[in-house]
Order: sequence, then structure tokens, then C-alpha cells
Amino acid sequence: MAISRASVPEPYAARLASVRDTLTRRKLDAYFVHDRMDQYWLTGFSGEDGSVVLTADHVVLLTDGRFDEAATREAPYARKVLRKVRGPEANAKEIKRLRVRRIGFNPDQVSVREFNELGKLIRPARLLATDDPIRPLRMQKTPGEIDRIRRAIHVAEEAFKAVRKWIRPGVTEREVAAQIEFEMRRRGAQGPSFPTIVAFGPNSSLPHYDSGDRRWMDSEPVLIDWGAQVDWYCSDLTRVFWTGAVLPEYRTITDVVRQAHDAAIEAVRPGAKAASVDAVARRLITKAGYGKEFNHALGHGFGLRVHEGPRVGRKSKDVLRPGMVVTIEPGIYIPGVGGARIEDDVLVTETGHEVLSSLPTTV
Amino acid sequence: MAISRASVPEPYAARLASVRDTLTRRKLDAYFVHDRMDQYWLTGFSGEDGSVVLTADHVVLLTDGRFDEAATREAPYARKVLRKVRGPEANAKEIKRLRVRRIGFNPDQVSVREFNELGKLIRPARLLATDDPIRPLRMQKTPGEIDRIRRAIHVAEEAFKAVRKWIRPGVTEREVAAQIEFEMRRRGAQGPSFPTIVAFGPNSSLPHYDSGDRRWMDSEPVLIDWGAQVDWYCSDLTRVFWTGAVLPEYRTITDVVRQAHDAAIEAVRPGAKAASVDAVARRLITKAGYGKEFNHALGHGFGLRVHEGPRVGRKSKDVLRPGMVVTIEPGIYIPGVGGARIEDDVLVTETGHEVLSSLPTTV
Repeated sequence: MAISRASVPEPYAARLASVRDTLTRRKLDAYFVHDRMDQYWLTGFSGEDGSVVLTADHVVLLTDGRFDEAATREAPYARKVLRKVRGPEANAKEIKRLRVRRIGFNPDQVSVREFNELGKLIRPARLLATDDPIRPLRMQKTPGEIDRIRRAIHVAEEAFKAVRKWIRPGVTEREVAAQIEFEMRRRGAQGPSFPTIVAFGPNSSLPHYDSGDRRWMDSEPVLIDWGAQVDWYCSDLTRVFWTGAVLPEYRTITDVVRQAHDAAIEAVRPGAKAASVDAVARRLITKAGYGKEFNHALGHGFGLRVHEGPRVGRKSKDVLRPGMVVTIEPGIYIPGVGGARIEDDVLVTETGHEVLSSLPTTV
Repeated sequence: MAISRASVPEPYAARLASVRDTLTRRKLDAYFVHDRMDQYWLTGFSGEDGSVVLTADHVVLLTDGRFDEAATREAPYARKVLRKVRGPEANAKEIKRLRVRRIGFNPDQVSVREFNELGKLIRPARLLATDDPIRPLRMQKTPGEIDRIRRAIHVAEEAFKAVRKWIRPGVTEREVAAQIEFEMRRRGAQGPSFPTIVAFGPNSSLPHYDSGDRRWMDSEPVLIDWGAQVDWYCSDLTRVFWTGAVLPEYRTITDVVRQAHDAAIEAVRPGAKAASVDAVARRLITKAGYGKEFNHALGHGFGLRVHEGPRVGRKSKDVLRPGMVVTIEPGIYIPGVGGARIEDDVLVTETGHEVLSSLPTTV
């Protein structure tokens, strides 16, 4: 049943080899992959219901009849097993067939039920919670992944430009969100990479606001936080703007946020600590008197998920490396006045950084 | 710190009381809720990052600063704890403060990491995997929930009517999906209840197809599977239609599916086994020679999630009860010809059933 490794196309061959190296180093016979995006990253199989069992010689894909055709098309080199019933029995049968003893898994992605039931069925083989071997690999994007992220950013930016022209006094937050998601979808997005946030006026001071029925008046600032998922890869952007006369303090916080945003981006380079980049923005905002009003992390990595490694916050232990792609999104939120946040998508290059997004940050 | 139970509004007071009854029967001091929709159902708090610890006397809501305002507004009767860091420390601190010993949790919803780390921190208190006390309660909807499901169906149906008129030869599947999601969003949906499936011609034979770039020709059937989420509650519908001359076999399978759909709905009544309702449709389709081509369950319950209890398939052990809301969606899929599926949303009433959806099933 061993497959020829030569038959696995890139980038999957290299990814499988990297994870297999980790298995060998950790004296594991197999690794059990449960997260859909890890499964896709590792094998190319995008089906929403699947697991992967990886050993030194085999890639076993467990799914069900609904994804039969997709599995054959997307990962022809894998051994495909179609489960007839849900539950751990099919997984256990394959693990037994592979005669493996020490099976690593990511404890964040396996439920207590799955662990207990599968653990019993595979004895004397054992499931061993292990440090995620895929997260550090997924953090550093390949050129192919960066291209797809560029497309996701382009689709989001084109949609924003189309919708911005269309915003008029009287439209609701919800209508603007619907319109921007429509414009992304028809340009090729699978969907928004998260539910679009459109917040007018004082609503913008809630960092995770759900777009509602408030109607826009042109003296109010507009905050839009949006992104597209294109060919599985995400983008994530935020802009604030207004047309009439906003409150003077809103103008001030927007200026401070823009300075923090620009300074933090300048600090993005390989070898920099993510926590230090956060500190650059936070220092500047604190100096301006708004330290408490910047109540979230400066940014986060993204890719197949809109939030993934590295962490870009005060307590992050991650160090920036070439190929990482992160958001830089300082914000200041003042109840009653509003919130200002400016978010761009930044690639860590060999020598510094490249800002992948291109919308102007000025109103 | 005990709160007066009188201050908890309905429907939350009744729900909290039901879950507390289960705790008492199982000799548990507390129940740890980790699923966002369980948290919302039980407390009214909709924040995306939260946990609930429920005891006989307390409702503790653990979230973070981003959801501070929302928690106060949505569940003012709960004790709110804002976590400064992610991870189990804050949860452990509250569990210790409550002096509880036996804490139930749903093993499907807690990860191995959370269980291990929280388990260590709360000793000598213990986390005990328990049968989900909330699933059976969530299956039977209250009148208020049924109203919200009706609204979710209405929004989905109105969007379908608007889009159907607009479909012309040359449009792509993706464009139709974008349009239907837009029409739902602007009618008040928070979003689609799942990514809309639009499949033309032979693509319709893949039950979980992703809408793509195929352009419609009017000799091809169109399959649309869509739903709206309105005020947190879902709808889920499927229709197939065509304008020109489709393949005769496609017409045949659509007729068989419609008969199975109608017969299964007639079998929906309180006391009926869900497996028997599935059997009604399956027998009819098998008799017509397409048993193997009906390769999924007849339907499923839905509500706060688009898939929840009861199960409506061959192996279901659930019995239909008044207030349950299920989809009835038989289908026949023939590679190269296409797939036909007709899906409606059906409420189990005291005496029989009510079809909540209202679009005609004929082309």
C-alpha cells in the first residue's frame, strides 16, 4: 500500500516532508490531523468533513461519500477511506491497519469525546497530545500562498472602492455590509473572510460591532472592517472615513492611529519580535494620552484563517520571519465619540517588509 | 453574590431552571458551557468569545473586554467576568470562587487542551464529561423561536423570488449565489446560514458543491440550496428548476423526489420515529430504482445552528415531539445527468405538522 513519494505534487510534498521530520524527531509513528485548514494545507483536500492520518510512508484521508469526487481530484496520491458512519470507528480501523503505536495530535483541535472514544478503540496504540507541528510551518507563506493573499486583498479593495462611491446619507450599516460582501463575491470571493463590520458614528467605538440599522449622516465617521476569502486565502482591512465635519476629537484620534500604524509598519522586519512591533504603536498612542483606549492587540497573522500565527500583541513570543503575513491595526475607541482603526496587510520580506494592501489611509 | 432568580427574564429563567434540574438529577454542582449557541440559548449573551458556569444559584459569564457592553445589555442578571488573558486561568479562578466540586461539561465541545489545563487548575474539583443536557431542550422550540425561524424562512424565500426572475442565460453559479446572499442580507439577514449552493446542470449531482464559474444555459436544471440567519435563527431550503427542455431522466428523478418529499412530510407527527419518516421517503425512492442515488439522510433539525437535533436519518434514535423543526430534503444524484433535491422546513405540531416554508415545489 506504500505510495511513491515522487507522485505527490508541490507544495504538498515539501509540507508532508516537513511534518514527517517533526514526527521522527518526536519519536511519533503517525500524526492525526483534525483541523480542516491544516488538512487542506497539508494535502490539498478541501472537503469540510475529513481527517488525515500521516505516517512516514502513508497519507490516509478519511472522509465520506459526499466528498468522494473532491478527494480524488484534490489529493489523488492519498489513500482515500470513505466512512459509512460518523464517529471514531473508521478512524480507529485505519490507525490499526497502519500498525502504528504512538500517534501525535493537536490537543486544541480534538474534543474530549473523540480522544476518549478513539483512544479506547486503538489500544494498545496511544494518542499523544503534542506541540502543533503545523502552526510554525503555516506561519511562513510560500510564494504561491502570498499570490493568493494578494488576490484576496485585491478583491476586497476593489469591492471597497465600488461601495465607497455608493454610500449616501440614509443608507444603513447593514446595507453597506451587504453591498460590500456582494461586490467581493461577484469578483470571485468564496465569501467574506469574517462578517463585515460597518459602524457609523458612536457605534464605531465597539471593536466587534455587528452592523445594524443605523442610517448614515454625513457628519458621522464610517468604520469598515472587511476582508475576502479567495481560493481559501483571506484578507483583512479596516478604514475610517467621513465627508462632513466630524468631532474634532475624532479627527485627533484618527491622526494618532495613522501615526501609530505607519510607525509600526516601519518596524516590521525579519528578526523583529512581534511584541516589539506592538510596543512601537502602543508607545505612540500612550504618549498621545490614549493608551487605555487601545484595548486590543496591534495585529495578527492570517492566511487560510483570518486569525492564525504569529500573534502580534504585547504578550506574543513570536519572532517575525520572511514569508509571514500580518495585519497592523492600531485603534482608539472613545464611547460617545467613536472609534478609529486603520488596518493594513503586511508581508515580512528577506530585508524588511512589503505592504500588500494599497488603499490610501487618508480620508 | 447570589442573584435573585426573579430578575431573570423569560425564556432564560425557564431554560436555566431546566438545566439546573438536570444538574441536580446528575448530582453535579455546576455545568460548564463552551458552545457559543448554547451560551446564547441559555443566557441571551451573543458574544463570540465566552463561557458560562452555571450553578444552582449563579450564572457566571466569562468573556473579555470586547464584549463588555454586549454582556451587560444582553444578560444583565449574570455575573460578568472579563478575562484579561485567554486560557483556562480565568475560568479556573471563577470555578474555585464558586466552591463547586463536580462540574459537568459536554465532551464534544471542550478540547483536550482545555480539559487538561483547566482540570489541573481546579483540583480537587473535577470536570465530568456528561450527556449534553442542552441538546434535548434546544430541539423543542418555543413560540418565540418558531417566530424567528419563520422570519428566517421568509427572508430566504423573498430573496429567492427576487433572484429567480433575474437569472438569465450566461450568468455564473457564483453570481447567482452572490445575488441571493445580497438579497437576504438587505432584507435583514445577518448572513446566509451556510454558503449558498448554486449548481447548474451536471454540477448538481454533487450534494456539497461549491458554486463556481459555470454559465447557465436554459436547457440545464438549476439547483439552489440556501438559507438565511435572521436574529440568530436559521432557515434551510432547496429548489430545482429549469426553463428549457431538460434531460428526460432529470424530469423523472425530480418527480420521484417530489413524491418522496410530499409523503415524508405527511409522516411528520408527534410520536413518529425520525427513522420511520426517513424510511417513508427512502422506500419510495428505492421502489423507483434510485435507492443508491439517495445517498444522504432525509433531513435534520435546525434552529440556532443550521444542523442540530433531532437527526432525521436511517440510524436516528430521535422521536419527533411538538416544537421540533426539521428539514425534509430527499435527493437523487446521477453523475452526468444531475441531481434533484427538494427541501422544506417543517414544524412538528401538537397534532401533526405545519410546513413553514411556502415556495411551490413545482417548476
